Amino acid sequence: MLHARAFQPTSVSLLIRDGLVVTMDTPRTVVNPGAVAVQGDRIVAVGPVDAITRAYTAADTIDAADQVVMPGLINTHTHAAMVLYRGLADDLALMEWLQKYIFPAEARTVSASMVEIGTRLAALEMIRSGTTTFVDMYYFEEEAAKAAKSAGLRGVLGETIIGFPVPDAKTPKEALARAETFIKMFRGDPLIVPAVAPHALYTNDAATLQAARALADRYQVPLLIHLAETQDEVAIAREKHRRSPVGYLDSIGFWGPRTLAAHAVHVPEADIPVLKRHGIGISHNPESNMKLASGTAPVPRYLQAGIAVGLGTDGAASNNDLDMFEAMRQAAFLHKLATGDPRVISAPVALEMATMGGARALGMDREIGSLEPGKRADLIVVSMASPRQTPMYDPVSHLVYATRGDDVTTTIVNGRVLMRDRKVLSLNEREVLNAARAFAGKVKEAVR
Amino acid sequence: MLHARAFQPTSVSLLIRDGLVVTMDTPRTVVNPGAVAVQGDRIVAVGPVDAITRAYTAADTIDAADQVVMPGLINTHTHAAMVLYRGLADDLALMEWLQKYIFPAEARTVSASMVEIGTRLAALEMIRSGTTTFVDMYYFEEEAAKAAKSAGLRGVLGETIIGFPVPDAKTPKEALARAETFIKMFRGDPLIVPAVAPHALYTNDAATLQAARALADRYQVPLLIHLAETQDEVAIAREKHRRSPVGYLDSIGFWGPRTLAAHAVHVPEADIPVLKRHGIGISHNPESNMKLASGTAPVPRYLQAGIAVGLGTDGAASNNDLDMFEAMRQAAFLHKLATGDPRVISAPVALEMATMGGARALGMDREIGSLEPGKRADLIVVSMASPRQTPMYDPVSHLVYATRGDDVTTTIVNGRVLMRDRKVLSLNEREVLNAARAFAGKVKEAVR
Repeated sequence: MLHARAFQPTSVSLLIRDGLVVTMDTPRTVVNPGAVAVQGDRIVAVGPVDAITRAYTAADTIDAADQVVMPGLINTHTHAAMVLYRGLADDLALMEWLQKYIFPAEARTVSASMVEIGTRLAALEMIRSGTTTFVDMYYFEEEAAKAAKSAGLRGVLGETIIGFPVPDAKTPKEALARAETFIKMFRGDPLIVPAVAPHALYTNDAATLQAARALADRYQVPLLIHLAETQDEVAIAREKHRRSPVGYLDSIGFWGPRTLAAHAVHVPEADIPVLKRHGIGISHNPESNMKLASGTAPVPRYLQAGIAVGLGTDGAASNNDLDMFEAMRQAAFLHKLATGDPRVISAPVALEMATMGGARALGMDREIGSLEPGKRADLIVVSMASPRQTPMYDPVSHLVYATRGDDVTTTIVNGRVLMRDRKVLSLNEREVLNAARAFAGKVKEAVR
Repeated sequence: MLHARAFQPTSVSLLIRDGLVVTMDTPRTVVNPGAVAVQGDRIVAVGPVDAITRAYTAADTIDAADQVVMPGLINTHTHAAMVLYRGLADDLALMEWLQKYIFPAEARTVSASMVEIGTRLAALEMIRSGTTTFVDMYYFEEEAAKAAKSAGLRGVLGETIIGFPVPDAKTPKEALARAETFIKMFRGDPLIVPAVAPHALYTNDAATLQAARALADRYQVPLLIHLAETQDEVAIAREKHRRSPVGYLDSIGFWGPRTLAAHAVHVPEADIPVLKRHGIGISHNPESNMKLASGTAPVPRYLQAGIAVGLGTDGAASNNDLDMFEAMRQAAFLHKLATGDPRVISAPVALEMATMGGARALGMDREIGSLEPGKRADLIVVSMASPRQTPMYDPVSHLVYATRGDDVTTTIVNGRVLMRDRKVLSLNEREVLNAARAFAGKVKEAVR
């Protein structure tokens, strides 16, 4: 209780009030009815609605009554612009899919403009489904960065480095130079964290992988890589290097700080301590791993070992959407099935992976992933009113097992309201969709 | 081309026009732009919009431009009223979940009124997500039938027969008598197909199972049973009967016409010909099987063997929703993972299971499951306009991999428009939700 004395409430920029606030702080505090006070790009207070509204007045107020207020979701692995290839070809063997569809489409249609159009569409989809931070690996990443910034999304964006000619670089050397330019361009940006993204161990030689590590260290930026996604990758590592993927990358000194490994499906027990020792974060992509028949990552083991695990959707060419609520549900379903134990990856664990787990895997857990004073104001408001969500006994169960991205009503990043009551404010939705539809015509031509 | 002569168009009750019509007929005809003409409860014509609109005028017209028009989805396994227990308890070992939560909740709260309130909520959710026929096994099934009829849904509804006292019957004999009364009450109904639903082989003795078969034969109604859902059930069949579940039921003469077996997870290769020989239909429930860690049904093998396989959600206490679009996607994902082959259960196969496959598994394929003249007018209109569905290269891929139940805009059963432009017409949505929320209070008390 506050004392009943003369009292001047503090003025803040934004109040989100009357919601059921799922903070995802360490004791997993839930406040109902609760409120969040935001000043500029930061959260200044979280608590019971009475206390917060007594202590703060705001220029703008969002009514979250009967809704859940929670941290924005962190999509730790995607290739955003690939939304333009979603559903282009499905249900094919990996090599046929790549060689007949994805590679020709990419060779003929990836350009700066494609990345701009695609990332804007992806941003629209992410804002509408409650993702506030996304981790991206693609080409022309400066266009992805510009699109993310203008849409208002937080992005950890890695310029792809790969050992064959691609639309934005003829050689890995050129790609490394582009990556360095990209880092210099966006270092210190309030929304964009530039990163270095060597594609994988089987598409880059040791020298390139080591140069990528050195570049990341030089600028203290994250390093992103695909790891042990398929059995084929394991076979290549065995044949060429006589080691496991984790072991090979260890042997060339690739592992180091702020490293995020996507997939990590085929990792033997013996390699788990190696990942742990180097503080590697894992991006788990259950939908992509199922749809492409890649396999089941040993996520329960990673968690037991204390490795930070976030969730990702992967690119929409392989999933086929960017809905992190689906990723949460799928993670829970997949590991229950794989272990034969329905207790594995409970709803709270799935929700943690999509928020604080992702933040930790990125080394950004002091800035994002929970609703706590001092953190960035990245949060979402989620409706719980649909028949599908009725009745509600446990909001966390419903967030994982009965909620869709489309239930998100309001998305806020860095204190800026990007979507309010399902209306996206930071993008012209019709324009974004029309540009994407027009571009799809070129893609159809390319794979004809 | 029609001849340019005086021509009187036929008057029909309803035209759905200008959509991309996915008929699911044998050659898998897609008509774009197409139209469907409905007279009363039947489809009278399906074809190009120009031809149909020249030949028919209608009292009512639904504009499906830029949307998909397709057969309504068939949910082949649910316990509709259990929506009232959705999310009550998750992530528990099966026995703890049943004994601490579901059984006490059922013992204390299942009643005629509970089934009415629950089935109305389930009907609302199904209408909003494009299900037009549901197969149900629960108690007080006459209340489920009344609720389905007033909501306008088609139901294959089986009064549960089980070997211990339950809220609507003290003994299996009483349950069999109730089932017979129920059959007499709804035989010949335009929407309700009454059925007999012995719960499982481990909850009923041989005499009861045989009596259930005899009752189904006497009235020529479907017989519904849970089959080989868990390893425990297999162990019980082995210990008590020295046979597999399929083999035991065969040995007592249980298998026969119009039989639908739900789950069929743990069925060895040798039993597949037995199911095929008896023409047994299978209800595959991928989400429930994953969430409860039951296992992976050999669905690709059933399909190869020519067994009719439909999809189901199972009750919302174990899934936790009734969205058949999720069931389609999950079926595709699960079997790609399980077989290691991304070509297995392609989008067209998943869509077929949710429509014609379900119809065949129910022995109702002459009446429902596709858009063809003479069939019941059970159809849905699905929006393809969301960012998540943009761009669209292949509508069938999008229906399975990028669409949610919430994208359904219009639901029609037996020629009656139950939802139009997302507005449900056959139920008072607010009333249904309020009744369910009020009932949830009793459930909380019951498991306290």
